[in-house]
Amino acid sequence: MTSLGLRYHKNRLTVLDQTLLPHQEHWIDIETPQQMVNCIKKLQVRGAPLIGVAAALALGHACRNEISFDDLVSAARDLRNSRPTAVNLMYAIDQILDGLDRKDFRGQVIQRAEALFQEDVDLCEGMANHGSTLIEEGDSILTHCNAGGLATAGRGTAVGVLQRAFEQRKKIHVFVDETRPLLQGGRLTAWELKQYGVPYTLICDNMAAHLMREGRIQKVMVGADRIARNGDFANKIGTYSLAVLAHHHKIPFFVVAPRTTLDPKCSDGSQIPIEQRDPNEVLGVSGSFGKVVWAPIESAVLNPAFDVTPHNLVTGFVLDNGVFPPDQII
Amino acid sequence: MTSLGLRYHKNRLTVLDQTLLPHQEHWIDIETPQQMVNCIKKLQVRGAPLIGVAAALALGHACRNEISFDDLVSAARDLRNSRPTAVNLMYAIDQILDGLDRKDFRGQVIQRAEALFQEDVDLCEGMANHGSTLIEEGDSILTHCNAGGLATAGRGTAVGVLQRAFEQRKKIHVFVDETRPLLQGGRLTAWELKQYGVPYTLICDNMAAHLMREGRIQKVMVGADRIARNGDFANKIGTYSLAVLAHHHKIPFFVVAPRTTLDPKCSDGSQIPIEQRDPNEVLGVSGSFGKVVWAPIESAVLNPAFDVTPHNLVTGFVLDNGVFPPDQII
Repeated sequence: MTSLGLRYHKNRLTVLDQTLLPHQEHWIDIETPQQMVNCIKKLQVRGAPLIGVAAALALGHACRNEISFDDLVSAARDLRNSRPTAVNLMYAIDQILDGLDRKDFRGQVIQRAEALFQEDVDLCEGMANHGSTLIEEGDSILTHCNAGGLATAGRGTAVGVLQRAFEQRKKIHVFVDETRPLLQGGRLTAWELKQYGVPYTLICDNMAAHLMREGRIQKVMVGADRIARNGDFANKIGTYSLAVLAHHHKIPFFVVAPRTTLDPKCSDGSQIPIEQRDPNEVLGVSGSFGKVVWAPIESAVLNPAFDVTPHNLVTGFVLDNGVFPPDQII
Repeated sequence: MTSLGLRYHKNRLTVLDQTLLPHQEHWIDIETPQQMVNCIKKLQVRGAPLIGVAAALALGHACRNEISFDDLVSAARDLRNSRPTAVNLMYAIDQILDGLDRKDFRGQVIQRAEALFQEDVDLCEGMANHGSTLIEEGDSILTHCNAGGLATAGRGTAVGVLQRAFEQRKKIHVFVDETRPLLQGGRLTAWELKQYGVPYTLICDNMAAHLMREGRIQKVMVGADRIARNGDFANKIGTYSLAVLAHHHKIPFFVVAPRTTLDPKCSDGSQIPIEQRDPNEVLGVSGSFGKVVWAPIESAVLNPAFDVTPHNLVTGFVLDNGVFPPDQII
């Protein structure tokens, strides 16, 4: 089992240290669940679907190494607490532990962990297959943040679609928004497209409108963190801006996400809370590449991590089971 | 004569080293025109109007120090070549040298340099007076790049308007776009507003749409680098994006510039060439605050320095002689 950020092969589990990307590609050997807890806490393993699968495989790996039942349950609890807000992580741990047979638990855990990996791969394949039918020969597609294979066990959401279109030998070009403040586009999506050999051009977030006006962007494709029942959706800050700009320039705007992202309990976008993050992220940048602060440190700052895009700006949702207009996703 | 970035007082000429902002406020004593040439070349003195005035005052200062006529002409030539694209600089040098009387040139140069300073101050006052009538009690205004007093001898263009409204004791708040890639908003406008005591909040460029949707921005005010006859105008990259977003949210969008920015020979925006800058500016950031690179260094990059906003997205132009709709600026 191999994904862009995780390998499980011949009883060896390794994860790519994503904090060192794009400048260094360093793989970390995982011997114990506790090591995976550390990797998740340090953001070396990131992306909600990948975290869930990685935690499950860490438990499966421990079972190959003859972990006791009590130690397994304890390790599962530690993993669950390693990233409290990750719904996929809790789902994965529940899937692993639910009604486990104390006598033959090891085989069950291994089987369930591998099934979780495969499930995520299949969801990504579904999106890629349906989404790639939308991509036309010669298209330039703008994407935002990292909706790619680094965040999943499979090939990712929006970037998975682009990769599939590229595999189909469609001539495409990808514009990558750098995605301030945390630069997931500039750091991760750019690195990922380079691995695939997909031609891309990196831009600052405020350049997209100019390129649209020049007719250089034919489609916008982004991921989603949460989709409300009416088709409003939350995604990385800057997504709503792109949706308005695409609408103004009559450019189709697609959201690519598995059905597990749909939240039927959420009636519309106003129900989605927006997390405010650390002001220091806006005053400068910081990462394994270094740290600089360019703004007056006493500046007041707003740093919403996400924004909400209303359904009427969405041309279509690419789900794992097909492409749907906003009013037909549920 | 004092501006935010230049002081000329009691036969002492000093300029603020803008490359060290916002973390250090270091003033450089200018003894000779050659020192001003160096400051302009190193971008320690920046902003088209300020460069012109600073060059003129450097010549005026040399005249107080008994420079010979031939040395003055030679120094003027060096200053003119210190920033070849700056139209204001050439205009200022021409104003200083034109028809100079060899016998009594020193007094003339001093007088003309001081007149150029005053002329720029007056233009800024005109914009501030007319523009501040547009600002209402309680307004939050979004601005982009640095359209402030650091770039002029006076109080600046868009920021000058905001400062005047603040002096009039209107309760206002300014949202400052950080303005990637060179971060003039985060570095310079934030610093400048702090000097004035105007309340401000720094945001990343991709957050403006979200704030507009939340009803937190009542007006957008930006500067301009060049205004075509039909009201299309060029300004720092990201300006066009804000104009589209403001239009979508029905938020008034104003351009603040002196009439010297109007280019009657330019019929519309399609005539304005867009300069592409160094890709390294997008792959990371660099300045006196440090240097980091976060993107794969072999990435293809687009880095347009400016964009063009069509006149139909402009609510009004605030010029030094009044506020005008796009079709009445000339």
